[in-house]
Amino acid sequence: MLSHINVFTRGREAMEDITHRVNDLIRRSGVEEGVCYLYLPHTTAGIVINENADPSVSRDILDRLEALVPTKGSYHHLEGNAPAHIKSTLTGLSLTVPIDKGRLALGRWQGVFLCEFDGPRDRTVVVQVLPSHDAGPGETVEGRAGQP
Amino acid sequence: MLSHINVFTRGREAMEDITHRVNDLIRRSGVEEGVCYLYLPHTTAGIVINENADPSVSRDILDRLEALVPTKGSYHHLEGNAPAHIKSTLTGLSLTVPIDKGRLALGRWQGVFLCEFDGPRDRTVVVQVLPSHDAGPGETVEGRAGQP
Amino acid sequence: MLSHINVFTRGREAMEDITHRVNDLIRRSGVEEGVCYLYLPHTTAGIVINENADPSVSRDILDRLEALVPTKGSYHHLEGNAPAHIKSTLTGLSLTVPIDKGRLALGRWQGVFLCEFDGPRDRTVVVQVLPSHDAGPGETVEGRAGQP
Repeated sequence: MLSHINVFTRGREAMEDITHRVNDLIRRSGVEEGVCYLYLPHTTAGIVINENADPSVSRDILDRLEALVPTKGSYHHLEGNAPAHIKSTLTGLSLTVPIDKGRLALGRWQGVFLCEFDGPRDRTVVVQVLPSHDAGPGETVEGRAGQP
Repeated sequence: MLSHINVFTRGREAMEDITHRVNDLIRRSGVEEGVCYLYLPHTTAGIVINENADPSVSRDILDRLEALVPTKGSYHHLEGNAPAHIKSTLTGLSLTVPIDKGRLALGRWQGVFLCEFDGPRDRTVVVQVLPSHDAGPGETVEGRAGQP
Repeated sequence: MLSHINVFTRGREAMEDITHRVNDLIRRSGVEEGVCYLYLPHTTAGIVINENADPSVSRDILDRLEALVPTKGSYHHLEGNAPAHIKSTLTGLSLTVPIDKGRLALGRWQGVFLCEFDGPRDRTVVVQVLPSHDAGPGETVEGRAGQP
């Protein structure tokens, strides 16, 4: 039930749209209704849902994060990527999205993005798909056990 | 299992307390213990849990977000609402909250807020309620199947 | 299924690593594969996953949050902890992490931190562990009910 999406990010900073790849995994799972968990096992990247119609929105997000957490600031961590760790904290790395009709129940303008803050690199997104159980298990059981 | 809460937000920016409406949905679901997923299918709004006792906390949150992402800044996205997209990224749009005794297991001072950054508008919150299964389904089944 | 971790935070601001304690709860639950929900019922603290190898990353996160939301700023909320409420909103208080092989499926450098913004204090983290059901419950039921 743990699936992985591998993404090679294309710049030092980048927003990589992974919406279609998540929907592919959901389709293969056969789940029509439920929830999809997206988890990033990294510390210098984030996962975000925002507009995927106009790519300038992604640029504005990266630019503003850079204004808030400047690369040329003063940091304790000596590997040079402290700002990437902080940006990851601000964007987050765990999302839960409803599944409806066999796909992510995204809003009209929404896409799922892996946000790279310290690339280019190979990244992994962990995807879990959980079907919803409309009937509680007890109900299901009784119905079936009644037909021995 | 996918329920929706419709909210008309009352200003260009606003924090709308939806705690009672989420608890109403949980009560109607009959779930006593489990988790509640809250998901916002929008790109210029956020969903946040914070203090709902003193409304000045909500004002401070909105004011500080405006200081960090000023409306009068310079952005690539030309629709004029780039700051709203960025604020949505900073606050997030997906929450998972435990359910206990048939309601959100919130802390004493907590409320759930839809954060409007580009209103006034009609907004929707997607709510999913998942019961927890203390006993694995196998265990439940065996107990019941043993009483034919 | 609702478990709690109690943490006494050691400063006005602090990042407390709770990774081992969450893994202890998962081990005791016996769940090998599933998801772990972490929820903070507070309004002046956050919960974050980031690097736990070099403690200077935690210092950088706290320092940058202070630069973005200065303690000596001007706020409406009169209890003196408005910045802590805002930092909590920026970091978030709800996480969902996959469980694999009986523990959090964290990345190599990741740890789970309670972020204190208004301490020192006693804090609580609510932990829920949900097993994944590879086979739907119906399938499990039929298999077992077939052996009366």
